[in-house]
Amino acid sequence: MDLKEIAKIIGAEYNGESIEITRMNTLKEATQSELSFVSNAKYIKDLSTSHAKAIIVDAKTKDAVPANSVALVVENPYYQMAVISRYFAPVIEDESLAEPMIGEGSRIAPSAVIAKGAKVGKNCTIMANVYIGSNAEVGDNTVLYPNVVVYRDCKIGSDCMIHANTTIGSDGFGFATNRMGEHKKIYQNGNVVIEDDVEIGSSTTIDRAAFGTTFIKKGVRIDNLVQVGHNCVIGEYSVLVAQSGISGSTTMGRNVVMGGQSATAGHLEIAPFTTMAARSGVTKSIKQSGLIFAGFPLMEHKLWLKLQGKIARLIKTEQ
Amino acid sequence: MDLKEIAKIIGAEYNGESIEITRMNTLKEATQSELSFVSNAKYIKDLSTSHAKAIIVDAKTKDAVPANSVALVVENPYYQMAVISRYFAPVIEDESLAEPMIGEGSRIAPSAVIAKGAKVGKNCTIMANVYIGSNAEVGDNTVLYPNVVVYRDCKIGSDCMIHANTTIGSDGFGFATNRMGEHKKIYQNGNVVIEDDVEIGSSTTIDRAAFGTTFIKKGVRIDNLVQVGHNCVIGEYSVLVAQSGISGSTTMGRNVVMGGQSATAGHLEIAPFTTMAARSGVTKSIKQSGLIFAGFPLMEHKLWLKLQGKIARLIKTEQ
Amino acid sequence: MDLKEIAKIIGAEYNGESIEITRMNTLKEATQSELSFVSNAKYIKDLSTSHAKAIIVDAKTKDAVPANSVALVVENPYYQMAVISRYFAPVIEDESLAEPMIGEGSRIAPSAVIAKGAKVGKNCTIMANVYIGSNAEVGDNTVLYPNVVVYRDCKIGSDCMIHANTTIGSDGFGFATNRMGEHKKIYQNGNVVIEDDVEIGSSTTIDRAAFGTTFIKKGVRIDNLVQVGHNCVIGEYSVLVAQSGISGSTTMGRNVVMGGQSATAGHLEIAPFTTMAARSGVTKSIKQSGLIFAGFPLMEHKLWLKLQGKIARLIKTEQ
Repeated sequence: MDLKEIAKIIGAEYNGESIEITRMNTLKEATQSELSFVSNAKYIKDLSTSHAKAIIVDAKTKDAVPANSVALVVENPYYQMAVISRYFAPVIEDESLAEPMIGEGSRIAPSAVIAKGAKVGKNCTIMANVYIGSNAEVGDNTVLYPNVVVYRDCKIGSDCMIHANTTIGSDGFGFATNRMGEHKKIYQNGNVVIEDDVEIGSSTTIDRAAFGTTFIKKGVRIDNLVQVGHNCVIGEYSVLVAQSGISGSTTMGRNVVMGGQSATAGHLEIAPFTTMAARSGVTKSIKQSGLIFAGFPLMEHKLWLKLQGKIARLIKTEQ
Repeated sequence: MDLKEIAKIIGAEYNGESIEITRMNTLKEATQSELSFVSNAKYIKDLSTSHAKAIIVDAKTKDAVPANSVALVVENPYYQMAVISRYFAPVIEDESLAEPMIGEGSRIAPSAVIAKGAKVGKNCTIMANVYIGSNAEVGDNTVLYPNVVVYRDCKIGSDCMIHANTTIGSDGFGFATNRMGEHKKIYQNGNVVIEDDVEIGSSTTIDRAAFGTTFIKKGVRIDNLVQVGHNCVIGEYSVLVAQSGISGSTTMGRNVVMGGQSATAGHLEIAPFTTMAARSGVTKSIKQSGLIFAGFPLMEHKLWLKLQGKIARLIKTEQ
Repeated sequence: MDLKEIAKIIGAEYNGESIEITRMNTLKEATQSELSFVSNAKYIKDLSTSHAKAIIVDAKTKDAVPANSVALVVENPYYQMAVISRYFAPVIEDESLAEPMIGEGSRIAPSAVIAKGAKVGKNCTIMANVYIGSNAEVGDNTVLYPNVVVYRDCKIGSDCMIHANTTIGSDGFGFATNRMGEHKKIYQNGNVVIEDDVEIGSSTTIDRAAFGTTFIKKGVRIDNLVQVGHNCVIGEYSVLVAQSGISGSTTMGRNVVMGGQSATAGHLEIAPFTTMAARSGVTKSIKQSGLIFAGFPLMEHKLWLKLQGKIARLIKTEQ
């Protein structure tokens, strides 16, 4: 897409030459043909080293844009990023791609739908009414139970099992809101990558990344009705028990356990071998590995047990 | 259905003439050919002004039924309302309706099922294994991702996007219980109306009204795994984050934000521009707009922060 | 499967004759052709009366194995039980079974998939894209809304209604973890039995038992987005409100009510006619019937109300 056209759509002044912009990306990951943005003061630190060809900023931030990038100055960069994200969204189903490839020994139910450009490995079982989108990939020996939906561009490894009615790669929950309180969708142009030996329960939802990838690492176990937000990284052999929810951009190390109905806020880092009891609510990053937590607000499990004792006594004193 | 037959089924005495009853409805909304009921003393105030042709009541309430209505006196009006609701339920799929109408430019997957009497507008994308029931309607430019289910009579506006495995219009959770503890289903004969520019995530469930309509107003954003109960009204541009749950008959104004895993009780009113932090539990109506709440029981967010501080100190004093 | 082969796979010494082992089961329920295991010291009490032909144990427990059983001694019995469970898993779809049987008057959508060996009773409505697996059974007059998935061997009674995108019989969340933190799936070889007159909402998940059966008894009402873990028993006329979660092997008596977003730990017993308010978290068995509880940790509802009053005063004293 021509940078001139982009500038026009978002209402930024740009009088330079035509430049072809291929994608949108974060400041850190954008390459020299890509568009990025600064939506929040805390990302200004990433500006000076960004390779993005053009960056959407507000007037205050304009001077920090590096010399090799074009500054596109607008009043509300986050909102204008949302406006332009639509133009970089791939088509939902790409009919121009090659016929899907199915590996030897795979059993595909007649009612399963596999879109063009998709690949299914060897000895897979793809059951009734499964949908596998454009360019999606499934490894070897993987079982997708009925009604599993895999959105376009998502990748599932080998030796995985995904239970019925689960969704891989639906859009992350992203939008910008203007002064009138109206929301503008941020198109979610990334994907989901699920590594080998992962089992996922039924009616679980794993959102695709806004940019980049939501990762479910090797050996992870996810139960039913779990929510994993966009751009999360779930570490090797981690365990997410039923009805837990992981907010966007949270990264966990290996062997983290999230108990039933527990949850995390977004943009956190959780150290390896951390265990969260059922109903834990995590609002800050966990730096030290190997600890057990409980409660909301979160505290170490042994403190939580003491607190419960105090509450019990508090109740009794007035009976 | 003949009023004589209705009386016989629910065990009420009625010796008048045959009267055709067309529907069941609430006291407030029932018209002169409809049947209503008083299941709870708090609705007696609506009796005197009701236009219902016949009203199921108990012996104590009988004399308050207006002169132009027939009182059908039973021991347990709520249970008998449930008994008779079954007779007013429309057939699940109405084969007598016209062939479905599909607007120009819409792309319907071959495996999608669109029932008779349904209408899909222009330039829609209806993906694999979607089900759209009898008399349901979808506006223009709307995307329904794979396996979305839209029950009969529900209406979805234009420029909407609904993600995979989401259900629009399943039955509200309604039943009456007798003295033996046995439940009798209250057939949910209303619908769901989703206005324009609404996005709904994956595996979310929005229940149809018992009578009347569950409304999702213009510009609303709903995340994954959210529950919206029957007869709710979700105000314009409101935001329901993942795993939140709105109990039946709760009405929220515009731009209400419900954080992740938050919930409301039923029959509440929530003022516009209210923000509920993650895990909030709302048990009373919120009258004043623009405030931020947290916790369960609910309190203003700034008080909740103070309370957390106190709890932290309480823990430390005994360490 | 030959006991010699089993011993070889799990690395246990066995020099006896060839014995055909037909299934895996719990110590209590195993018959004389079945394999069992002791994974936890608390089950040692069941050893002396077990009829299992062979029992996987560690060296410490070996001597408690009854004389008529073969002791298969390994270092980590739970992990080796997981290893061998795979060999007893039935095929996902058994093409050798008879064509499915459909009762008189049942209406099966053309896009529904009914596997071999399945039976559907009379006057059922099986809607679009429903999947009914091998050997599964559905009684009379039952309605399965679109995209319901019933896994193999599960049984659904008569006069039931199951709403869209709900999953019956997906695998329970079971695995053993070795010293490296790697998980090994415990194949879930049991089933789900749903008795008559049960209604289940949309996007609810009910897991099949590891061994034996997950029971949903007569007259139960289950709302949307509810999780029922493997080997649970939900008593007659019990009510599970939206987003509640019942952990594995919990048994409840009749007419238990679980409020919205409430949950139980696993392996509990809950007395009949117990009511849990919304968000209750149940961590211990409830012995006395007819009480009302709330909170997490759980307390009687009247105490919970007092506690809320104290918290309210605690907040006010510092304002």
